[in-house]
Amino acid sequence: MWEFRSMNFWRAVFAEFFGTMFFVFFGMGAALRWTTGPHHVLHVALCFGLAAATLIQSIGHISGGHINPAVTFAYLVGSQMSLFRAVFYMAAQCLGAVAGAAVLYGVTPGNMRGNMAMNTLQPGISLGMATTVEVFLTMQLVVCIFAVTDERRNGRLGSAALSIGFSVTIGHLMGPGPSLLLYPSTSQTWVYWVGPMIGGAMGALLYDFMLFPRMRGLSEIYITTFQYNQQNERRQIEMDQNKAKKGTKLGKS
Amino acid sequence: MWEFRSMNFWRAVFAEFFGTMFFVFFGMGAALRWTTGPHHVLHVALCFGLAAATLIQSIGHISGGHINPAVTFAYLVGSQMSLFRAVFYMAAQCLGAVAGAAVLYGVTPGNMRGNMAMNTLQPGISLGMATTVEVFLTMQLVVCIFAVTDERRNGRLGSAALSIGFSVTIGHLMGPGPSLLLYPSTSQTWVYWVGPMIGGAMGALLYDFMLFPRMRGLSEIYITTFQYNQQNERRQIEMDQNKAKKGTKLGKS
Amino acid sequence: MWEFRSMNFWRAVFAEFFGTMFFVFFGMGAALRWTTGPHHVLHVALCFGLAAATLIQSIGHISGGHINPAVTFAYLVGSQMSLFRAVFYMAAQCLGAVAGAAVLYGVTPGNMRGNMAMNTLQPGISLGMATTVEVFLTMQLVVCIFAVTDERRNGRLGSAALSIGFSVTIGHLMGPGPSLLLYPSTSQTWVYWVGPMIGGAMGALLYDFMLFPRMRGLSEIYITTFQYNQQNERRQIEMDQNKAKKGTKLGKS
Amino acid sequence: MWEFRSMNFWRAVFAEFFGTMFFVFFGMGAALRWTTGPHHVLHVALCFGLAAATLIQSIGHISGGHINPAVTFAYLVGSQMSLFRAVFYMAAQCLGAVAGAAVLYGVTPGNMRGNMAMNTLQPGISLGMATTVEVFLTMQLVVCIFAVTDERRNGRLGSAALSIGFSVTIGHLMGPGPSLLLYPSTSQTWVYWVGPMIGGAMGALLYDFMLFPRMRGLSEIYITTFQYNQQNERRQIEMDQNKAKKGTKLGKS
Repeated sequence: MWEFRSMNFWRAVFAEFFGTMFFVFFGMGAALRWTTGPHHVLHVALCFGLAAATLIQSIGHISGGHINPAVTFAYLVGSQMSLFRAVFYMAAQCLGAVAGAAVLYGVTPGNMRGNMAMNTLQPGISLGMATTVEVFLTMQLVVCIFAVTDERRNGRLGSAALSIGFSVTIGHLMGPGPSLLLYPSTSQTWVYWVGPMIGGAMGALLYDFMLFPRMRGLSEIYITTFQYNQQNERRQIEMDQNKAKKGTKLGKS
Repeated sequence: MWEFRSMNFWRAVFAEFFGTMFFVFFGMGAALRWTTGPHHVLHVALCFGLAAATLIQSIGHISGGHINPAVTFAYLVGSQMSLFRAVFYMAAQCLGAVAGAAVLYGVTPGNMRGNMAMNTLQPGISLGMATTVEVFLTMQLVVCIFAVTDERRNGRLGSAALSIGFSVTIGHLMGPGPSLLLYPSTSQTWVYWVGPMIGGAMGALLYDFMLFPRMRGLSEIYITTFQYNQQNERRQIEMDQNKAKKGTKLGKS
Repeated sequence: MWEFRSMNFWRAVFAEFFGTMFFVFFGMGAALRWTTGPHHVLHVALCFGLAAATLIQSIGHISGGHINPAVTFAYLVGSQMSLFRAVFYMAAQCLGAVAGAAVLYGVTPGNMRGNMAMNTLQPGISLGMATTVEVFLTMQLVVCIFAVTDERRNGRLGSAALSIGFSVTIGHLMGPGPSLLLYPSTSQTWVYWVGPMIGGAMGALLYDFMLFPRMRGLSEIYITTFQYNQQNERRQIEMDQNKAKKGTKLGKS
Repeated sequence: MWEFRSMNFWRAVFAEFFGTMFFVFFGMGAALRWTTGPHHVLHVALCFGLAAATLIQSIGHISGGHINPAVTFAYLVGSQMSLFRAVFYMAAQCLGAVAGAAVLYGVTPGNMRGNMAMNTLQPGISLGMATTVEVFLTMQLVVCIFAVTDERRNGRLGSAALSIGFSVTIGHLMGPGPSLLLYPSTSQTWVYWVGPMIGGAMGALLYDFMLFPRMRGLSEIYITTFQYNQQNERRQIEMDQNKAKKGTKLGKS
């Protein structure tokens, strides 16, 4: 609970509000302006993906750049985040989404508002099908996020934010895409909450326990421990050296 | 005013002229060649965004790569630039935009010139709506620019220029996009000057004072000061060591 | 055969299963949803390419991120992989592709299933033509993969995964693209197996023996050996120094 | 002329052949397959740009990745390349382009061959207009290439190859794009040779003499010289230290 008193905590919560507001403003703005058809999907998918990339670049160093409750939930499941922080993030994201939709509503002429890009299930798609798609889309998104932000990696990774953005794009190119889900208009709304939450949790568990777990075989632990000890030893030596040299220098002057 | 005598200053001003000329040449060139429709927007948005990325890569190390008066204004508001330099940058940008449009006009057959991609408000969009959109688009652009060029960050950032380019792209995918506004043809022209300037200033203040301020809580200042002192001390020691060693070496030889 | 007992080996095999399942799920999902036409190709090409980039980012540090039997075959030909590992990778990729197609089949309404994006030769294209195209597409993909993952390079490479993804995209933009080839429906199916395998092997040999071979002229070997010896010498000195210092320090305390 | 005896020289020449062959194969392949219209341009522009990025990633460390005679000419004008090497590069590029077109011709059914994507001037565009466009397109491409490969820069540059690829893309999005110019079919062919060559030379001179020259004002030279001397001094000291330590160590053992 000590986080509550830190300015950085509140800046992170505000950043999530800011990021989600703009994500909804851009993504829904692109979605509602044009007619339907195959082109529409590419246009909207690129806007959602590049908006995610841009906003994660903008606030990633402040809050981590989740801008999605399912991602925050995945971090919570992966034990990389306190429940306290997760609750505030999710609240900020929901408020941000409402604010972004409200601003967009305000700047859109009445004849273009339509249904404000609300996802509705296409005929022939059952609730189970829709939930499965949402689970799969969010699962790959969360595995991608965990992989590109994993501090154990190095090498030719490029931009983490752009990788996540393109992961959002393929979700929209493949299917109807993760819903924005701003207000419960139909009885099917729960699909767009339950699916991403299950997918987020599954992605976190998949990455942390099957694909790239932190605890590995015993022999590897021994090796890692050995290397870690060596490293610590070296650092200690260096610090001692510096101290010794400083002493010498101070003694001299 | 001492900047006036530096060749690097004039090179930076020329780079802004060069960058804005090509940005207008490419962006407007893509905008005027084809018919309207949903596809048109994606084509033009990608051309504007990728042109911004290309030109920022090309001149970013020379002038900072603003190629937009609203960005220069944001740097001025954020106290990262002298008024003197900002005035010359903006003048170079305006001249560059006129030059780019003139070259484009010269190489375009008469029947394709049309209205040279001038933004005009769609029916049903009020001046207040248009200004709000311009404010939001420029605000996210400036927050993105300040974030990706922030020297306090490190990590998997990828290309700063490409991030800014995609930020330009989503502005065009979402709405009519920032205007080029080369000459005042209608009474609504001020929208495309006032909106971006307000948005640029708001973005600069938002990033510098709310999202990632340089001055943080007192305890953090103490910690930072302590670390800073430690670092300085270490550097001093290193320099003394080098001097001592050099002395030893010279004494020996 | 010792790999068999390592958890990391099985994690890599599972990662290939996971990656190929999602690659097929996204790529085929994008391919079957919309009508044919020029736009369709861009939509599908971007989805395949960005899905490859996303999944290689996600599992590249676990298995290498092949998600394609032809790529695994190229690594085998290039002697960068044991036959044992290659066989398990290919089996995992085939199972993953079947699983991805099965999931997609399950979540697609009957009227949209069509022919599940199976590649069929356009009239007028002979088997020889199709095979040649497949060879060329896979050859450039493998040369690109070998080049961006070559540990002898450094510099402004950016993201290896995104480079490979765009290499996949141009394969789809240029022609009908590499087939997914899930089940042998026609007598022409072998084209989509033989072509990529030949292209993968040719790409590996081309890169390793003509474009950037490891063994170079004799004079270069001498130079490299000399530098290598120097480097080793330096490291030895450093280690000795550290030991000596440590001894001194322990002796003092 | 000593380059003639180096294997690396011939590998670089072969890499240029390989790169240009594939660049033409992919770009023209994308260009000839579909009907005309606004979409066509985006499809082709992305294929040309991403093919350039992919091939520069693949051969950039071998030959520099020019894959365009105008770029080689720009390097020659910028004194970054010997005339001998430039002539061999250009010959390899021309042969590669012919080979790529020949392969493409062989794998394309007769009814789709059309005019093999040859650029022809649109009615209303004069030769002067076309030449000016070619000059501007190549000028920005060369300035971008020189900027992203400038070894004096550091920072958040991302992928040099992708930056150059997007620079190619905006050239195609803006206008008819640089021609491939495989065989002189009309009397206007010279436009697509003269324009890029002038643009390449202008870009090289612009970057090297106006935007970011190597020789700067006198005061800057003094400062740089001073820093350079300091750096050298430090390196000398370090080497002496290492020698001394090595001596000590060898003396001890």
